[in-house]
Amino acid sequence: MTYSYEFPRPALTVDIVVFALDEDDLKVMLIQRDLEPFAGQWALPGGFVRLDETLDAAARRELEEETGLKGIFLEQLYTFGEVDRDPRERIVTVAYFALVNLEGHKVQASTDARNAAWFAAGDLPALAFDHERIFDAALDRLRSKVRYQPIGFELLPPKFPLRSLQHLYEVVLDRELDKRNFRKKILSMDVLVELDEIEKDVSHRAARLYRFDKKKYDRKTRKGFNFEL
Amino acid sequence: MTYSYEFPRPALTVDIVVFALDEDDLKVMLIQRDLEPFAGQWALPGGFVRLDETLDAAARRELEEETGLKGIFLEQLYTFGEVDRDPRERIVTVAYFALVNLEGHKVQASTDARNAAWFAAGDLPALAFDHERIFDAALDRLRSKVRYQPIGFELLPPKFPLRSLQHLYEVVLDRELDKRNFRKKILSMDVLVELDEIEKDVSHRAARLYRFDKKKYDRKTRKGFNFEL
Repeated sequence: MTYSYEFPRPALTVDIVVFALDEDDLKVMLIQRDLEPFAGQWALPGGFVRLDETLDAAARRELEEETGLKGIFLEQLYTFGEVDRDPRERIVTVAYFALVNLEGHKVQASTDARNAAWFAAGDLPALAFDHERIFDAALDRLRSKVRYQPIGFELLPPKFPLRSLQHLYEVVLDRELDKRNFRKKILSMDVLVELDEIEKDVSHRAARLYRFDKKKYDRKTRKGFNFEL
Repeated sequence: MTYSYEFPRPALTVDIVVFALDEDDLKVMLIQRDLEPFAGQWALPGGFVRLDETLDAAARRELEEETGLKGIFLEQLYTFGEVDRDPRERIVTVAYFALVNLEGHKVQASTDARNAAWFAAGDLPALAFDHERIFDAALDRLRSKVRYQPIGFELLPPKFPLRSLQHLYEVVLDRELDKRNFRKKILSMDVLVELDEIEKDVSHRAARLYRFDKKKYDRKTRKGFNFEL
C-alpha cells in the first residue's frame, strides 16, 4: 500500500526533550537508536505523526512508547524545518519539552528493547540529527520560563522542602542563589502552602514541607499577579 | 505526476499573522480567499511549504506573494495540528507572527489579484479555518512579548516621538498608560537615543524624535539587563 499526492510532502515527526531533576543536576532523557541513520547514537525520543492524531497526542504516544513516561507536563516548543536536517529525506519535526518528577514516574526501556536513559544536561553525548539544537532551544525555554511561570514545580514531588526548590532553581539557572533572599522572595509571592509535615527518612535535619497552591496562583494571576523568581 | 509514500502524510502549510500600527489601532493583514473552502471569506496569508525551502523561507515567500511585504520582522509562533482543522484533509500549519512599520512598507494585492487588506485587530471579520485561534495566539504572544523584549520598535518608523511609542504600548496592551510614568520607565532603561531632530509636517507641536539603540540594548543584555515595560 502506498499513499499518493499531487505535490511532494515532507514527513512530519515529533521529538520530545524531557527534563528531570535529581540530587545532583538537571537530567535529560535520551534513546539509543537501533536503526540507521545514526544507529547506536543517542537521540531525543520521538517519531512520526499519524494522520488521525493531534501533534500533542503524537508526542504523548511516542513518549510513552519509547520511555514509559505518561501523564507528565508537556508543551510545544518549536518546529524545526531545516531542509537537510535528516539525511534520509525532508523531515519537519515539531519539538516538545516535558518536565517530570522523578519520584512519581518510573522510566523503562521501550517494549522494542531500545535503550532509554537519563543524562546530565550539562554533559550530553553527541546527539543524532539536529537534536543538540533542539535540546539547546528546550533548555533556553526552560531557563526563561521557570523565572516567570511556576512550571518548575512539575520537576518536584507534590510536597517538598524549600531546599529542593532552591536546588531546582540553582540547577536550572546554573548559578548559586542566596538562601535567605531566595526564601524571602518565594514566600513573599504567597503561592506556597506550609504543611504540617516534615521530611522523612533523611540523614540531615528533617525540614518543613511545602506545596505549590495552584488554585491560589490562578486566582492571583487573574487579578494581575506575575510570578517572578 | 504524483508523489507516493509508504505511510500517509499530512500536508504542511505556513500561515502568517502580520501586525501593524496606525494612528488609531493595531491592524492585521488579511487575504480574501478566492477558492473553496471558505471562498470569499477572509483568512491569514499563507500556503504550502515546498520541499526545498525552510519553514521561515516558506513564510517569507508566501507573505511576499500574497501581500508584497518583505524584509519584515518574522518569528515562528506555534504549530497547529488539530485533526479536523481543514475540511479538505489533514493539514498541519506552522504559524508565524510578523510586525511591520506601515510607513516603510506598502502593501499590495497579490499578483493573482487576491484581495489583501488591513483590519482593526479588535474588529476582525469571521476568519476561515482555525485562523481566529491562530490570531488569538499571535495577539497573546505580541502582548506578552512587547513587555520584555524590544520588538515593539518593529511597528514604528526608525525615528519616532515618545508619544508614538506610548500609543503603541497602549494599543497593544489595550489600556491607557500614564504619560509621566511611561516616559520615566522607558528612558530609565537607557536604550533610546534622543535625536537632534523633531517631527515634520504635523498639525500639533512638533515633538522630539528618538531611535531605539539596538547595539546598546544587545550590549546591556549580555551583561544581564532585562527590558521590561
